[in-house]
Amino acid sequence: MRDWIAIVGVGLIGGSLAAAAKRRGAARRVLGIGRNPERLRGAQSAGLIDAWSTDSAAVRDAELTVVCTPVDRIADDVKLLWSNVPSGGLVTDAGSTKQRVCEELSDCRDSNREFVGSHPIAGSHRQGFEAADPELYAGRMCVVTPTEESTPAAVNEIEGFWQSVGMRTVRLSPAEHDRALAATSHLPHVTAVALANTLNEANRELIGTGFRDTTRIAAGDPDLWTAILLSNTADVCASLDALTQQIASFRAALERGDAAALNRLLQQAKTVRDSLE
Amino acid sequence: MRDWIAIVGVGLIGGSLAAAAKRRGAARRVLGIGRNPERLRGAQSAGLIDAWSTDSAAVRDAELTVVCTPVDRIADDVKLLWSNVPSGGLVTDAGSTKQRVCEELSDCRDSNREFVGSHPIAGSHRQGFEAADPELYAGRMCVVTPTEESTPAAVNEIEGFWQSVGMRTVRLSPAEHDRALAATSHLPHVTAVALANTLNEANRELIGTGFRDTTRIAAGDPDLWTAILLSNTADVCASLDALTQQIASFRAALERGDAAALNRLLQQAKTVRDSLE
Repeated sequence: MRDWIAIVGVGLIGGSLAAAAKRRGAARRVLGIGRNPERLRGAQSAGLIDAWSTDSAAVRDAELTVVCTPVDRIADDVKLLWSNVPSGGLVTDAGSTKQRVCEELSDCRDSNREFVGSHPIAGSHRQGFEAADPELYAGRMCVVTPTEESTPAAVNEIEGFWQSVGMRTVRLSPAEHDRALAATSHLPHVTAVALANTLNEANRELIGTGFRDTTRIAAGDPDLWTAILLSNTADVCASLDALTQQIASFRAALERGDAAALNRLLQQAKTVRDSLE
Repeated sequence: MRDWIAIVGVGLIGGSLAAAAKRRGAARRVLGIGRNPERLRGAQSAGLIDAWSTDSAAVRDAELTVVCTPVDRIADDVKLLWSNVPSGGLVTDAGSTKQRVCEELSDCRDSNREFVGSHPIAGSHRQGFEAADPELYAGRMCVVTPTEESTPAAVNEIEGFWQSVGMRTVRLSPAEHDRALAATSHLPHVTAVALANTLNEANRELIGTGFRDTTRIAAGDPDLWTAILLSNTADVCASLDALTQQIASFRAALERGDAAALNRLLQQAKTVRDSLE
């Protein structure tokens, strides 16, 4: 068991990770690092972290540091703390896109310290450590994204850490990760947003559970999502094109009144969806 | 309180209506009419209906008949039973589209009997009377769709019936109804289907809650939805065009890296979605 791990950014993601690490014995003690003393004090009072600091130099005692800040801040946050990472220490993150971060941090490795990117696929539309859930990661998938320079030992250790908080793991290159997540995560988000933005006020009373379900994730934080989408524009555009093509096919079948084609598309989607239960 | 109401088609929708009518005292007794004796016997054993028949002539004792069959069968089912509707009797339906049904049934009125269309906006991806829920309609909206020929007394009575099973009601013309529901119900369904159909098998393990939420309703019955969509093609195509336009706007902002525009679209959608909770 690690003695200390550091978590930078103790919100929903970082706070849940702290809780999971302690509950499952992945670390004896958790240090929280952030910018707002009041929030960090709150996270400590809530029992999520054992100590806190607003100074990134505090990572010097941590065998592992996990940066859980928004995706547009991860690279800067890692660079800021890098000089204080102790010998033998590892750094990873929890960001939703990987290619940009991993490129910017390609220099964060030396003979016995290393950054390896991660993306634990778990979350909530809720925010802040108050919504932290020690079971947020349980049974979910974490993508670990080594580059060609990553050492096998470091990658193994990072994978082992995510497994020790209850996750399954898979390895993908940063580029493979971003392409896949554009399809499985960023596309549904933009879809929900676009659908929500079609709503005409006059129709509000006529909304049923279908509209609610299909737009639910559009309640996510706009700042977080602006950063995620801007860090993966080409892949998200390609996924949007695939969706637009599906919509066009469906519309064409509808316009020509082709019951067989509509039924086939509806059945295909049902088969996909049923298989996800 | 009505002595007898008849419900044609005792599945999820009809069975829930039977249960709600009895629980809330909207009718003393409920007659179930259908095609399959075994299923009707099951619905009676489950306590949903008091009697059943496979012969539509049985509606002769019912003060109100509600046709709860799939949307492509409603008009035929009403025509079949119409000659047996007793003097003073009313007939309505629970179909998801109204213009075609109300046009086809424009002759179903005489001096003291009348058809008025309805759409109780409630449902489930589950099917069959086994999933019937006496609270399915509670607090939900029912659209009643009179035509120019409808008599105020009949429209009032139909509205009163839906209110007596716990619903709120609103009146729209059949055309207004179909345009609005294309936007609020049929569009989300096609969106979920199109999104589900973009899934690449290789990415299955990387799906999170967002993809699941946004595709949930794609598990709906393909036959029912083929019928619904084919009965409202022009309105659904117009709604699909509105969605495609929203997606194109989002994609353009993304491609030019316009953080302000993306944030605005994301915030707009969040405001819409938060207001639906």
